[in-house]
Amino acid sequence: MLVKPDDLTRKNVYKLLTGMVVPRPIAWISTISDDGIRNLAPFSFYTAISSEPPLVCVSIGHHKNRKKDTLLNIERIGEFVINTVSEECVEQMDQTALEYEASVDEFAEAGLTAEPSAIVKPPRVKEAKMAMECRLYESLALGADFTLVIGQVVAFHIAEEVYVPDCKIDHAKVKVVGRMAGSYTRTTDLFAVKRR
Amino acid sequence: MLVKPDDLTRKNVYKLLTGMVVPRPIAWISTISDDGIRNLAPFSFYTAISSEPPLVCVSIGHHKNRKKDTLLNIERIGEFVINTVSEECVEQMDQTALEYEASVDEFAEAGLTAEPSAIVKPPRVKEAKMAMECRLYESLALGADFTLVIGQVVAFHIAEEVYVPDCKIDHAKVKVVGRMAGSYTRTTDLFAVKRR
Repeated sequence: MLVKPDDLTRKNVYKLLTGMVVPRPIAWISTISDDGIRNLAPFSFYTAISSEPPLVCVSIGHHKNRKKDTLLNIERIGEFVINTVSEECVEQMDQTALEYEASVDEFAEAGLTAEPSAIVKPPRVKEAKMAMECRLYESLALGADFTLVIGQVVAFHIAEEVYVPDCKIDHAKVKVVGRMAGSYTRTTDLFAVKRR
Repeated sequence: MLVKPDDLTRKNVYKLLTGMVVPRPIAWISTISDDGIRNLAPFSFYTAISSEPPLVCVSIGHHKNRKKDTLLNIERIGEFVINTVSEECVEQMDQTALEYEASVDEFAEAGLTAEPSAIVKPPRVKEAKMAMECRLYESLALGADFTLVIGQVVAFHIAEEVYVPDCKIDHAKVKVVGRMAGSYTRTTDLFAVKRR
């Protein structure tokens, strides 16, 4: 079956893209406003893009032709934290996807603990088993509705119980959640491929 | 546990990034050279970044200070196809991750069928249940070792048996495979979150 984007509504293009580019990692991003109000929201147009320097990118869609608080905070403060979403936190993460007023502290709203970061100003989610402190490296407007944020990782946080020397992660213990179209996937059914 | 990238070897930064940004979708990219030789290779620094226009990005690491054939072909021809990897194709996909000489037809090498695309010159993988024909939209050098390729989707291909009107995908049938650090994850354990 062949479908051309030009023949689809914008909403249906979005549905196909999010249905076909799967499973996506979730960047649960914590930021602060100029006034120090904490914001937390999940984004799944997210990946790693370089290891030297360590860079990740997150594309943030605008909401009703306005930049979201997360994007405004990243542009103003130049810093953010990407927290990892494990199965234990998935309901709290999903709750932070709601649109709150900029004045609402989304850590408090979701019952999460704001742990001070080592280098950047925004706190990380203490309950998250992994987090990356990031500095804004570059941002790129994409079409009318998205901004691609490229962040440089300046610190990694890993819970002791999921860390395996040397720089490996025990995924059976972290139980990271991935994003599909409208649902989520567990990552507990892992396998290796033996090369011929 | 706090780890700063500056204190790590480059290889260990890569290990942490690929262990923490999970699960990643896999872009199994088909391209052709100037001479028409078909290339196929998987990349997991990949995500969707915009729906209007429909854009995806793939970051392609250089190999021994040389651009890989996939990147050279994308830059020269300006077109590529992103094929989706289902469980049935995972061994063939993994085989195409090997470094072959530029003269090798990787469709033939992996026993796959090259199906002509509708719009772009490179063929798609007939065995893949979903594919997106793309045109190069922009490319961006990242540090010394990666190039971020942004592609605009000009056609979606979806196997009839996995398509659900209206523009949805039956993920229980596609069985897309995701990339973790050194292993893969199945996406068969799906769940929804009920909002409070």
